[in-house]
Amino acid sequence: MAAIGIADTTFSRVNMGRIAEDTIRESGEQHRLVRYTVPGVKDLPVAAKRLFAEHGCDIVVACGMVGHEAVDKACGHEASTAIQQVQLMVDRHVLEVFVHMDEAEDDADLLLLATNRTRKHALNALALLKGPTSLTPLAGTGRRQGRNDVGGIPDK
Amino acid sequence: MAAIGIADTTFSRVNMGRIAEDTIRESGEQHRLVRYTVPGVKDLPVAAKRLFAEHGCDIVVACGMVGHEAVDKACGHEASTAIQQVQLMVDRHVLEVFVHMDEAEDDADLLLLATNRTRKHALNALALLKGPTSLTPLAGTGRRQGRNDVGGIPDK
Amino acid sequence: MAAIGIADTTFSRVNMGRIAEDTIRESGEQHRLVRYTVPGVKDLPVAAKRLFAEHGCDIVVACGMVGHEAVDKACGHEASTAIQQVQLMVDRHVLEVFVHMDEAEDDADLLLLATNRTRKHALNALALLKGPTSLTPLAGTGRRQGRNDVGGIPDK
Amino acid sequence: MAAIGIADTTFSRVNMGRIAEDTIRESGEQHRLVRYTVPGVKDLPVAAKRLFAEHGCDIVVACGMVGHEAVDKACGHEASTAIQQVQLMVDRHVLEVFVHMDEAEDDADLLLLATNRTRKHALNALALLKGPTSLTPLAGTGRRQGRNDVGGIPDK
Amino acid sequence: MAAIGIADTTFSRVNMGRIAEDTIRESGEQHRLVRYTVPGVKDLPVAAKRLFAEHGCDIVVACGMVGHEAVDKACGHEASTAIQQVQLMVDRHVLEVFVHMDEAEDDADLLLLATNRTRKHALNALALLKGPTSLTPLAGTGRRQGRNDVGGIPDK
Repeated sequence: MAAIGIADTTFSRVNMGRIAEDTIRESGEQHRLVRYTVPGVKDLPVAAKRLFAEHGCDIVVACGMVGHEAVDKACGHEASTAIQQVQLMVDRHVLEVFVHMDEAEDDADLLLLATNRTRKHALNALALLKGPTSLTPLAGTGRRQGRNDVGGIPDK
Repeated sequence: MAAIGIADTTFSRVNMGRIAEDTIRESGEQHRLVRYTVPGVKDLPVAAKRLFAEHGCDIVVACGMVGHEAVDKACGHEASTAIQQVQLMVDRHVLEVFVHMDEAEDDADLLLLATNRTRKHALNALALLKGPTSLTPLAGTGRRQGRNDVGGIPDK
Repeated sequence: MAAIGIADTTFSRVNMGRIAEDTIRESGEQHRLVRYTVPGVKDLPVAAKRLFAEHGCDIVVACGMVGHEAVDKACGHEASTAIQQVQLMVDRHVLEVFVHMDEAEDDADLLLLATNRTRKHALNALALLKGPTSLTPLAGTGRRQGRNDVGGIPDK
Repeated sequence: MAAIGIADTTFSRVNMGRIAEDTIRESGEQHRLVRYTVPGVKDLPVAAKRLFAEHGCDIVVACGMVGHEAVDKACGHEASTAIQQVQLMVDRHVLEVFVHMDEAEDDADLLLLATNRTRKHALNALALLKGPTSLTPLAGTGRRQGRNDVGGIPDK
Repeated sequence: MAAIGIADTTFSRVNMGRIAEDTIRESGEQHRLVRYTVPGVKDLPVAAKRLFAEHGCDIVVACGMVGHEAVDKACGHEASTAIQQVQLMVDRHVLEVFVHMDEAEDDADLLLLATNRTRKHALNALALLKGPTSLTPLAGTGRRQGRNDVGGIPDK
């Protein structure tokens, strides 16, 4: 049994944190879940850091939504850069599940996209907990989170 | 009782630091407030760091205004990147309350925007002091600071 | 005999990790290979860090593919920035083998490009293991990975 | 009496370091001044770090000029990012006095701009040495360095 | 006598590392030179770090060439950012001698530019080894590396 942190935001228009929790619970695997909700994506890195340092998590799924404007894109980039740093400080994975609002055509599409990406990355977190070669059978197969897989290019 | 740092700038055209102080005082919660005023947004990160290291703060609200020019945007980005680093160095939240001058239509709008964003993030700071699930009831509900909330997308 | 880490992704459309492994095996040099497969490029930096810290690697080849969209380019940049940090934290080289999908004309070209770049950087890893002047005879000779070399400019 | 570091460059077309020294001397305050001249803005961060670590400075004024080209802008951004890091490593302020050459209309304007910005930031350094609320009476009053102040927006 | 590290690349079309070595040797000053050749600019930061940590260098000259494409510019930026970090980790200067291929009109111009910039920065390294005010007589005089100096603006 591992401890999995789920960080999410009040800015998001989809309850991605609950979707991540549900996905892990429905997997049948027994893990301790720790939720941490913050205002926006720029508050996620330190939440992730604290989930490792104060709550003993082994891996974190960090869910957030990035707005339409250039300043929102900059915020997303700053958050992502810091999430990289968190991982290197603790030597643990943080699965970053960011949805950019301009990726979707409308609200229904945004909900589908956010749900699909959150679910797939929650499953990726479970796979990474099993070790470094757990995903190797899927290496180079063009997996996508949020949309359909595109597939690998046969090399023979 | 916690210690809350309020960092702000002389560059800003709105006294965001005082608005943050007033919001916390009016909340009725009893916290020690520590003010730190610097020239511009690029001076905020080390001010926040010192509010933690030298003044014993538990959380910091960092208020600043970002000018219209490309070079101003770069400054804002550099400051935000460093504010991320501060949080990871001390494992504490810094609520970044940045207002971009080109977000507003005129002076009156800039004042409204800066006031609204500062107040809401000061309240977010109070919520985060209560623990990681304090904001979870609002997860995925499309909260905004500075403008009206946009709401969540119902998933059922 | 050294330990060489091979980190790669399920996002990639080419099995770059296997190509790197094959290249090193075919070189005739005897090294221990450690594979680590992650979802995407943003998961590579901490994988590389763990290959050094937990698996005793002396050098890492980090293979990934970067999508067409602006948000993909941002992801690639964030991953690259963190791969730089990993190297400075452990004082060891990480050969970054990133292929941008818009570098290629079609799937066949993408396969050629990814294969060529991965092979050449796997050989660069072997050279760097031999010491700091191992590549000096090739200094300033316009070597390229992924495409043909362009050559040096004669200075006499 | 404090120790104030003055870092500047040979790239600059204005002797900003001397202007900073003169401003502090003319203030009547008694401080030890330490000068450190480097080629360009990208050499300033480590100069500032050494002014703290090897020369015992309490604060640093880092003066530089940024050229017209895109590559120059990138250099300025890299230098600024590192100056942020220096401050967080030592918990001391570095007043960054950067002048972008395309801010000015001609040589005379560039001289005025660089002089004004350097003088005002040298005075800001003196204020910050007096403590975190030394500048609070000016909070939100739209102060500018290099050009005229724009003023605050009255909120009542 | 100091130890000077010379890091360079096989990507470069000009043997900048040898030019740096020759410049220092021709200066008549007696220094120990340590060469470190890597594939490209993104491999330079850790090479510089190792030149300090493993080879006892006092200063490093890091020479590289940056390609024409947007992805090359991103690589250059990532390398420069990391070179800044190296300097702050060891409190020593790294003179970054980067030549962007689109700075030059043709091969002959690229050779001139790379040679001029490398020579001038190798001499800057020698000056910086002499102490923080060694370059102060040239402060604000508009020095350039790669092209002709532009001169200072007289302020009296």
